[in-house]
Amino acid sequence: MAEPRSFAERKTHALAVLAEDGTDVWVATASTDGRAHLVPLSFGWSDGRVVLATEARSVTARNLAANGAARLGFGGTRDVLMGDAEVTASYPLAAAPPELMDVFARQSGWDPRGDSNAADYVALELRFVRLQAWREANEIAGRTLLRDGRWLDE
Amino acid sequence: MAEPRSFAERKTHALAVLAEDGTDVWVATASTDGRAHLVPLSFGWSDGRVVLATEARSVTARNLAANGAARLGFGGTRDVLMGDAEVTASYPLAAAPPELMDVFARQSGWDPRGDSNAADYVALELRFVRLQAWREANEIAGRTLLRDGRWLDE
Repeated sequence: MAEPRSFAERKTHALAVLAEDGTDVWVATASTDGRAHLVPLSFGWSDGRVVLATEARSVTARNLAANGAARLGFGGTRDVLMGDAEVTASYPLAAAPPELMDVFARQSGWDPRGDSNAADYVALELRFVRLQAWREANEIAGRTLLRDGRWLDE
Repeated sequence: MAEPRSFAERKTHALAVLAEDGTDVWVATASTDGRAHLVPLSFGWSDGRVVLATEARSVTARNLAANGAARLGFGGTRDVLMGDAEVTASYPLAAAPPELMDVFARQSGWDPRGDSNAADYVALELRFVRLQAWREANEIAGRTLLRDGRWLDE
């Protein structure tokens, strides 16, 4: 087992994972009647926000519209970056800030504005309420990087 | 984009993913009041059942005790194996069938029966209600492999 990383190493790694091109995020949401949903989605990382684009009728979009809360898993399962997040803005795709969708499109390699069913999509902006990073059991201590929306070194 | 795989290719791949050594599964559950939880866990695949071991006080164990339903994500996010599953049995670790825990320990590389806090753990057996496999957009059609607990070629 590798030596546990410092807070600074984990934060640097977390920001690199969030800015990586062409990766997806596992998005867990729940319906108001307590049914879990999980799906991998393309994402962007813009100005401290996670940007998602998904069909308005999808289970994820409907759950987020109802309760605004998601749990996001990035990276491999033995190099985990895990966040509790809340929706800070939701836009019909055509009304989303162009600079937000530019970041999303560049990072994910997919621009939903060019899709034939673009009108079916919503863009969602989420902020982390909590963010944790760990690899193996010896990194469980010190895994919290951000709490109540603030990095712990801020 | 690669050619879409046949049902048989996807099923073969799914069974290989489920039997793979040393990988984890993303487990999404929901509390009865509609709060999503997500965590990566070690797993085993024994006789058509997913086997998990987790602390009884963990959010995952408590959600599963309350509603018995999970959504399980395997593999990478661009080579997805995704299942809706239900708990078919739950055991205090000491009461779990030894052959079940032997499969879990061999496949995951971790035998919780040897942990100092083994008494804190539960073993859970889950069956798939639905299982889907897809890589890219051209595999969305035909992604369902198992429905209502049965493989579609059965």
